[in-house]
Amino acid sequence: MTINLPQLLDDLVTANHILDKHNVVDSFGHVTIRHPENPNHFFMSRARAPACVEIGDIMEFKLDGTVVGPNPNPGKPYSERFIHGAIFEARPDVMAVVHNHSPNVVPFSVVKSQRFGAIMHMAAPIGCNIPNWDIAHKFGDCTNLLVTNMEMGRDLAKTLADNTVSLMRGHGAVVVGKGLREVVFLSIFMEINAEMLVKAQSMGEVTYLSEGEVAANAKGRAGFTLERGWENFCRGVNRPYYPQAWEMGPGFSRTDPTL
Amino acid sequence: MTINLPQLLDDLVTANHILDKHNVVDSFGHVTIRHPENPNHFFMSRARAPACVEIGDIMEFKLDGTVVGPNPNPGKPYSERFIHGAIFEARPDVMAVVHNHSPNVVPFSVVKSQRFGAIMHMAAPIGCNIPNWDIAHKFGDCTNLLVTNMEMGRDLAKTLADNTVSLMRGHGAVVVGKGLREVVFLSIFMEINAEMLVKAQSMGEVTYLSEGEVAANAKGRAGFTLERGWENFCRGVNRPYYPQAWEMGPGFSRTDPTL
Amino acid sequence: MTINLPQLLDDLVTANHILDKHNVVDSFGHVTIRHPENPNHFFMSRARAPACVEIGDIMEFKLDGTVVGPNPNPGKPYSERFIHGAIFEARPDVMAVVHNHSPNVVPFSVVKSQRFGAIMHMAAPIGCNIPNWDIAHKFGDCTNLLVTNMEMGRDLAKTLADNTVSLMRGHGAVVVGKGLREVVFLSIFMEINAEMLVKAQSMGEVTYLSEGEVAANAKGRAGFTLERGWENFCRGVNRPYYPQAWEMGPGFSRTDPTL
Amino acid sequence: MTINLPQLLDDLVTANHILDKHNVVDSFGHVTIRHPENPNHFFMSRARAPACVEIGDIMEFKLDGTVVGPNPNPGKPYSERFIHGAIFEARPDVMAVVHNHSPNVVPFSVVKSQRFGAIMHMAAPIGCNIPNWDIAHKFGDCTNLLVTNMEMGRDLAKTLADNTVSLMRGHGAVVVGKGLREVVFLSIFMEINAEMLVKAQSMGEVTYLSEGEVAANAKGRAGFTLERGWENFCRGVNRPYYPQAWEMGPGFSRTDPTL
Repeated sequence: MTINLPQLLDDLVTANHILDKHNVVDSFGHVTIRHPENPNHFFMSRARAPACVEIGDIMEFKLDGTVVGPNPNPGKPYSERFIHGAIFEARPDVMAVVHNHSPNVVPFSVVKSQRFGAIMHMAAPIGCNIPNWDIAHKFGDCTNLLVTNMEMGRDLAKTLADNTVSLMRGHGAVVVGKGLREVVFLSIFMEINAEMLVKAQSMGEVTYLSEGEVAANAKGRAGFTLERGWENFCRGVNRPYYPQAWEMGPGFSRTDPTL
Repeated sequence: MTINLPQLLDDLVTANHILDKHNVVDSFGHVTIRHPENPNHFFMSRARAPACVEIGDIMEFKLDGTVVGPNPNPGKPYSERFIHGAIFEARPDVMAVVHNHSPNVVPFSVVKSQRFGAIMHMAAPIGCNIPNWDIAHKFGDCTNLLVTNMEMGRDLAKTLADNTVSLMRGHGAVVVGKGLREVVFLSIFMEINAEMLVKAQSMGEVTYLSEGEVAANAKGRAGFTLERGWENFCRGVNRPYYPQAWEMGPGFSRTDPTL
Repeated sequence: MTINLPQLLDDLVTANHILDKHNVVDSFGHVTIRHPENPNHFFMSRARAPACVEIGDIMEFKLDGTVVGPNPNPGKPYSERFIHGAIFEARPDVMAVVHNHSPNVVPFSVVKSQRFGAIMHMAAPIGCNIPNWDIAHKFGDCTNLLVTNMEMGRDLAKTLADNTVSLMRGHGAVVVGKGLREVVFLSIFMEINAEMLVKAQSMGEVTYLSEGEVAANAKGRAGFTLERGWENFCRGVNRPYYPQAWEMGPGFSRTDPTL
Repeated sequence: MTINLPQLLDDLVTANHILDKHNVVDSFGHVTIRHPENPNHFFMSRARAPACVEIGDIMEFKLDGTVVGPNPNPGKPYSERFIHGAIFEARPDVMAVVHNHSPNVVPFSVVKSQRFGAIMHMAAPIGCNIPNWDIAHKFGDCTNLLVTNMEMGRDLAKTLADNTVSLMRGHGAVVVGKGLREVVFLSIFMEINAEMLVKAQSMGEVTYLSEGEVAANAKGRAGFTLERGWENFCRGVNRPYYPQAWEMGPGFSRTDPTL
């Protein structure tokens, strides 16, 4: 597969707009992709509200958060870029990261007795028992809760371990995946799942997805599932939709194994 | 009554857009109609987000999910078309089916002790005691929860029995009816009723509609009630509104029995 | 004051659109005004979704629900027009009525132990102890819950008594007032108050407004308060705003008693 | 720094629109700034819904609520301008004030046993233990809850003391700060925090931010954080964005201390 870097970066801009439209981020939060040809670098917008991000805002970083290239153009980087760098460092399998303050997810980060996990299949890959990183455990209770250096980022990555998601107490969450479509998709359905779970919890004992159901979904989630969402998400923010696989036509997918 | 098939299929496109606009479906979920002249066939979009569906996406299927006509054009079918086929097979009275992940309905599918049913008259035909199909009962707890073959679809249809709605644990719901307007209308008011019920449950003991009230509504729901909603729904998504009965003028209805 | 009937009827169209925009009505619900020169007649749209109502849809009725003038033009009337007629009959002080299925209000109609009333000043005139009419008490538990004749309407009016609001179990509410702006304004703030109250109830014992506070608000609610809302509501639905008092300029009001 | 008064007043118009768009105010609520060159005066719109406010509506007042200049042009002032005047009088550090009926905040004002405070870092400066002013304590339980003279305003300012926020029982809240961007930003994130807290409270014991975390956020909140929000908020209401610091380019900020 030939890598089309300009198109990938354009998709990164689109991802910013989609996350804003779906209420996963507001003026804050960010999404990154690992450089497809240089695993030691990643791409991220300069410090700007996701809805405002344009192609000229995309910057390249080393995993330790150092800006690559003439600096500080195009502008100040996000002070929390270390979240992303530290996760890319710890998890070679991860190609994209979202950090958000997803409004229905944050409540789960501040209620200790409350289990957060998937109750519906669309959100299954977030897992059925999601860890919650508390910055105060290692850095004390007088921080501003921001992850502003690699030491903090590495501590968060340790809590994330090999999960898809970690909550961050009083702050938000990180979502990781093998690609940009996947982390955007999961961030959106994590927010939907969280709102459903708040409601379910108010009514009685909740049946979460089983570990087997989570595994079956995580394993079986086909590219065309992500494509169906991505085409629709792109339309919703008036951004170009680039079908990801060559065999996809003007719509996208003819890959059903049952055909 | 002469059947106007092109208009019916155009209404199917409209139904997709309406369900999206009213938050009953998002990038997933689907709506089908039985072929009005061939009860062994049904119509459904190819696998695409409902908001994106166009007339060229509509495909014809046999009840067992086999594509009718040149295949695989216009594209990959929904892998869950068996939900619809199995219900059309089991219920000759059913002419249209919606499958959704309606966000206020899903919570009721994962709280065993919680009764789901109509508390307000607009949603009355969903019933006052709605069954909940759990795929794990017959197919184990390691599925991805999707209904991807006729065996699963038939098991769901068995739980649905002669009800209007069945929940699907950790997944969503199916809504069936005698026509497209009816299933769209009911799906919208089921979601509204569910949100009201979550709130009512948080405040004390709830009075559901009685069986007599459900029956009176289901029986007495006149065509002009569906038309009043349908005209408004069509406007909301900028789609043409075709009045369904010949005696309806530019507005629609002069059929009040009290006149 | 000279009555400008065409302008009043145009405001009635606007009121329909405003109530839709503010989620007080959806495809159902209606608003009426008493004829300003003939207290035995009232105006109401034909049976159409409020968002679709145009000036040509407005019909004139006698209090018993009989259509005035050539019938059945412009179309079928609402089958629940008896709600309005019976209230205008019982309450000579009432000049306008809204009937709605306001989504945060309905839950209060189905939870017997839950008190509904104003907790914030904008909604004060709805009162601090609102009655709940149950159609089943007089007409049994096999109705479709609709108020389709004068006997039912009169029973509802009896429960309403001299209140501003009555809930209707499993159905919605009626809101009455001295003018169109007032009932629209109160319907909007009743819905807002209801959503606040659901949340407050989930957190502990609630302090409702006192009877003295309700009275002070009901008495002191100046015309310019309604005007401030009405100007804004009209803009939100792209409808003309007619300042109601002669002394109001292009904005509206210079009537502050403290000036 | 040269003061650009016309631009500041234009920002005040923008602030009105932003607060409306983010559901912090509806047809009611107001925002003010102290005159940057005359601490005994402040600016505020005439009595109009925030979404409708234009530059010609801005009026100048003395701290006691008296209109400065030809009166009563451009129109009737807000009857609650004394909220702002009394706070500017009591708190020389305060340069801007928002008064709102923020829908998720009001419930906290009517539940005595419920603590309101920040649970997530974006809202940290609102504090972790927010006072609740009850007009009835001093003025009895027969008021209409409005703050319509300086005596009432001063009583509220006394409860506010040196906090950033005070609730107002059955009414809303006041938010104060060192500048317009700050009070708008905090009002928006207070509403978001309140909605999160309602949900968290329904699920178990809540961990609020610690006092140290609140202090670290309040102290460390850099101008570029407010700018990132403000640029995005301006876009959302189609209003001009004026970068506030000279060193900010077409985007805004290159001031990261880590660069």
